[in-house]
This record gives sequence, structure tokens and C-alpha cells, in this order.
Amino acid sequence: MEFKVDKGVLGEALALVSKAISNTAPIPVQINGVLINVRNDSVKLTGSDSDISIQKTLKVADEKNRLEVIDEGDIVLDARYLQEIVRKIDSSIITIEVIDGTFTKISGNKAEYKINGMRAIDYPNIDFNIDTDRYKLKVSIFEKIIKQTVFACSDKETRPALMGVNFKADGSVLTCNATNSFRLATKKVLLEDEMHFDITIPAKTLNNVASALVENLDFEMAIDETKVSFIFDDTIIRARLIDDVYPDVSRLIPASFMQTLQVRCRDLLDAVERTSFIKSEGKNVVKLTIDNTKLDISSNSQEIGSSHEELDIIEFIGSPITISCSGRYLNDALRSIGSEIVILNFSGELKPIVITEKDDDTLTQLISPIRGQ
Amino acid sequence: MEFKVDKGVLGEALALVSKAISNTAPIPVQINGVLINVRNDSVKLTGSDSDISIQKTLKVADEKNRLEVIDEGDIVLDARYLQEIVRKIDSSIITIEVIDGTFTKISGNKAEYKINGMRAIDYPNIDFNIDTDRYKLKVSIFEKIIKQTVFACSDKETRPALMGVNFKADGSVLTCNATNSFRLATKKVLLEDEMHFDITIPAKTLNNVASALVENLDFEMAIDETKVSFIFDDTIIRARLIDDVYPDVSRLIPASFMQTLQVRCRDLLDAVERTSFIKSEGKNVVKLTIDNTKLDISSNSQEIGSSHEELDIIEFIGSPITISCSGRYLNDALRSIGSEIVILNFSGELKPIVITEKDDDTLTQLISPIRGQ
Repeated sequence: MEFKVDKGVLGEALALVSKAISNTAPIPVQINGVLINVRNDSVKLTGSDSDISIQKTLKVADEKNRLEVIDEGDIVLDARYLQEIVRKIDSSIITIEVIDGTFTKISGNKAEYKINGMRAIDYPNIDFNIDTDRYKLKVSIFEKIIKQTVFACSDKETRPALMGVNFKADGSVLTCNATNSFRLATKKVLLEDEMHFDITIPAKTLNNVASALVENLDFEMAIDETKVSFIFDDTIIRARLIDDVYPDVSRLIPASFMQTLQVRCRDLLDAVERTSFIKSEGKNVVKLTIDNTKLDISSNSQEIGSSHEELDIIEFIGSPITISCSGRYLNDALRSIGSEIVILNFSGELKPIVITEKDDDTLTQLISPIRGQ
Repeated sequence: MEFKVDKGVLGEALALVSKAISNTAPIPVQINGVLINVRNDSVKLTGSDSDISIQKTLKVADEKNRLEVIDEGDIVLDARYLQEIVRKIDSSIITIEVIDGTFTKISGNKAEYKINGMRAIDYPNIDFNIDTDRYKLKVSIFEKIIKQTVFACSDKETRPALMGVNFKADGSVLTCNATNSFRLATKKVLLEDEMHFDITIPAKTLNNVASALVENLDFEMAIDETKVSFIFDDTIIRARLIDDVYPDVSRLIPASFMQTLQVRCRDLLDAVERTSFIKSEGKNVVKLTIDNTKLDISSNSQEIGSSHEELDIIEFIGSPITISCSGRYLNDALRSIGSEIVILNFSGELKPIVITEKDDDTLTQLISPIRGQ
């Protein structure tokens, strides 16, 4: 096995497939290992921990790869060492050659490294051939869905369903929900093509997909029994779906509100951030006191002290209200807002705060209040 | 106690005095606490862990401080919270006011914080008045001394003397030595004024002094029995000296050599860095094989593999030699070299490698070889 490839291209490909490499992989050769399959027309790099697998294909035909295949073959190399070498080598073209069994030479310019590889035959067979229906998706839309929902997922393994974002396509509308049962992010997207599915994709997978997204490039999604695949031009990300019923969260969002506040999103976000270090037992709680003229933000902790700030508002409809919630949740929700003006809706101090955008009704962020603060 | 001060000035002053604040302080109020002494003409900020104390004076007379003293007084505040507030507050002027006992209000623009302070009376009395001789030093020279020696200190507490840099002024020459007994950095400086002392300053103190140095500003050093003080315009750094006899290291440097190599410093440093991840039991060892035409750098590890690279040399005098040493030590030594060309001197493969600059004979870096590699 021997090939030459552009250093930058190889470095980026390794960075991408390495996202799927983790210590939790069930088979030793997968841990730290990147599978390299060299064929006359291409080199495929694969990283996988069985839950998520990423394969990048470098084609000879693609000039920017500067790929030259001298000898076909397969090898598994330690991705960390390979990345280290690619980062450090002082040459724009890198040659990788198996010289004896799994012993592999990596060279460029006057420097050469020899590292012990592992046998490709010991690497599990990961099927990247997708024969189910494929859905075309726009990168810009998918990116927004991830940015606006994935942070609201739970990181607790006690309820696996909540560790992912639920994607439910019901004909022409795709509804994406993420919740940890104290907050909920809901994004609705109008679909160009008719789609029908109800799947929950792990947050980790979505973060990996987000980092693989290349601007203005569309991609396809394919779903089978237990897996979802994201198919890009040269990259396939294939991940296990969460096999757990997603709760019905649609009833959580109130249909009407008692109070509605409009405020400049940036001002509110800055003020919330300024209180973030005022923590009680590790948690920052912000108290919002709102009337027709102003929004008052305060935070209090026995150990540290208190903060207090007044903000100008744009509009408030309803009777004055005082309500407390997690500063971090409020911060996350406000960060997901794209419009200049944010709307906070209330139904009394014991009911969730519902945050929406002024110019776009497709996003809803819901945060449970904290009582008695 | 109440004063107003420029946000940027306060932030920088806190960052500086915080370098002396550590968990190892013997008195609780010192841990995380910054002492603030407000007088009509100035505000003094002090941080100390007893081993090292830093005091910054903000004078009303200095316009850039934008300092206005409304009420004199003293308080100790948690430096972390104060820094956090200063970083986040949305105002170029910050007001700090003790409102009740030690309860302190910090405000700017529309935001205000109230934090619990501590009593200044509980803070140890640190004497910053220096009545011994003062030596004038140039920042540019002192900076170079620190950069070229301090990395070679030991981090092991078994031999306290080696945890600092020894400064020995013998009339017109200042000799600075740092060693961990496997490597030695020696810098000699010609003094403009006659000086006589022999002190060992902890590496940690020197790193703090380095970060307090302001370009092109001279400062003074004063030494008494057990302490050294660095006196800047508005800042005093006062630190405990290492109370342990410094070993005589002058005999370690050979007077003559059997082989001398000249090579471009950058080329050698890059090549050494490229081998750095080839580690055996956590240690990277580089083997240098040199003859009249080239320098061969290699590195080998059972676990990871090997690296090999050839470098062009400028000149080699002597018979061919093969010698091994710590890659990290060689890297550190080469980084301290200011000239384009570095000289490596050898006296056989069992004797130390002595590294000097081509255009400057004031710096000597010595590295013990590693046998049988």
C-alpha cells in the first residue's frame, strides 16, 4: 500500500473522521485507529466507535487532493500519531507506505516516520451503502436546526430519548424538539418535498454533523431501522438512532399568554451574562421583574453576593410580573435567537417562560421557572 | 471607603496582583483576597501568599487611572469575583463603595453588584518599605536573563536551591545559573555599576516579575537578608529568596571541545519539534549523528515508532559523533537562542552537549547526554 496526498487535505480529513473515534469503541482496533482503504481511484478514511462512523473519500479525480495511488491496500493507523505527523511534517505532499506487514512509513521532504499499524482485517465491517430513501436537505436550514435545539438536550443517561433531538416529519412540516425536561427548544421547518419520519438523533452525532457541514452545499439524509446517514459529496456520517420513544412535548407550550415583553436581545443577553458568576451551590438564578417601563434583572447568592441591573424595554403588555429562572438556560435560549428583538411570553410566575423571535415564528424556547426566589 | 477608577486600569492591576494570590497562603484572608487601601491621593492593591507579594499603586495624579477618591478606607475583596465583575461590567468607570461593614457595592452604568468583603485588619502587614541598597536594572536585559535561564530550573522540592535562578554579582559581572542537574543554563551580563550579591530567586517569582515588566522601563532591585524586591514605577514585587546554598556549577562547563557543529537554529528546532511525539515511557529522546556533510536526527520508541530526518549543516569540525539527549531539553535550549546560527559543542558521546550562540558568548546551555540509545 502506498499513496501520496496533499498535507492539508489529509489533515482535514483526519480531523473529521477522528470525531468518530473514541475510547468507548467496542473493538480495540477502533480505539484511536483510522482505517485507510487505498484503491486505484481513491483513498477512503474511516473512523468509528460503532455508535457513530465517519467515512471520508479522497478521489484521485479531485485535483485539490493531489492524490497519487502507487499501490492498493488497507491499513489501520493510530489517528493521533498520524495527525501529529501530518501537523508537523514540513512538506506539502505526504507519502504513506506500508513497508512490512503493518509497519508503515510516513514521509515528506527530508523527514520520515515509521509507525506500527494495525491489520485492516481486524477492523469491523461498517456498511456505508445506503439503499433506503434519501431526503435532500439544505445545509443552511440544518445548521440552524442544530444551533437552535441541540443545546437543550439532556446529558443524563437516565432518559436516553432526551439525549437527542427528535426530528418528526409529518408531510410538509419538520418539527425538531430538544428537551431535558426543564427546558424545551422547538424548531419548525417547512419542507419542499413530502417527508415522513419520526427519529431521535443523538446530540453528539448532530454536533459532529455540524462540524462536517460545508456552507452552501446540500446533502442527503437516509433513514433505516436503527440508523441515520448524512451523505455529503465525499463524506458519509452514519450514526445509531436513539431507540427510545420520544415524549409528546407539544402540549407543554401554552397557546396564549398573560404577559408579553419585547426587548433588544443583545441587551438582555449581556445583562444575563453579567450575572453569571453569582452562583448558589453552583447554579446561577436570574430574577426578572418587569413592568410597563423597565426590566429589572437581579441575581443573589449567600456565598458571593448579589447583582442588579435595569434594562430599557421596547414594549410590555400585561400586568407587572416577577419570575426567576436558570441564568444558563436563559443565556442559551437567547443565544439561539437570530432576530434583533426577542419576545418573552409569560403566564404567571409559576408557568414556563416562552421565548420567541420577533420576525420568525418557527422557533420556540421554553424555560421552566424556579419558584420562591 | 469609596472610589471611582478606570475599568481597564483596575482590570490590569487586579490581573497583576492576582499572580501573587494562591491557595498556599497561610492566612485565610489572603486566599483569593485582594487588599484595597484607599487614601486621598491613591488606591493600593495588594496580593500576597507570603512567599510573594505584589503591590500596585494607582495614583490620583496619574490621569490615565481616572481615579477619584470619595472616601478613604480599607477592605479585602475576593479577587476572582472582583475580576469577573470588572471584566463584565458595561462601563468605562467603575465605582467601589463599602456600604455596610465589609459589604461592598461595585457598580458601573446601570449594573451593580454587592459582594461580601473581608476585614482589612485581618490581612497580614506586609512591609513594602525598602531601606537597603537599590540596584538599577534594564528591563531588556532582565527579560533576556529570565527567558534564557528560568526554564532550566528544577521543579522538584527535594533540592530547593535548584528551584530558582542563582544571581551572582561579582563586581562588574552578573552570572545567572539555572539547573535541574541534568541541564544547565548560564547567562553572563556585564554590569554598568559595581554590584555584589549572591542570591537565588524562585523561578515562580521570576515568571511573575517577567509578566510585570513593561518594555523600555527600567526598574530597581533591592536585596535584604531573606527577600528581594523589584521596584517599578507603580508596582513592587517582593519575594522570599531561596534559603539554601547554590551548588558551584562553573566546573560543569568544559573549557575545550572535541567537536563543534554550526547549524541554522530554526532548522534544528523545527526538526527536534517534529520528533517530539515519539516518546518512550513519556520521554522523547533525540539521537544526533553528525559528520562533515550532514546532521542526522532520529528518535525511536517501541510503542509508537521512529522518526528520521537529515539536516544540512553550516560547518562541522572534529571526528564524526553520535550522541543522544532529551528532545525537550534540546528544544528548550534552542528556543533560548537569539542568533540565527547555533553552535553545538561536544566532547565525546558521554560528555555534556554545550550550546552557544554564534554572535554572543554570554549564553551557555548545557545538556547531559543519554547513554546507550
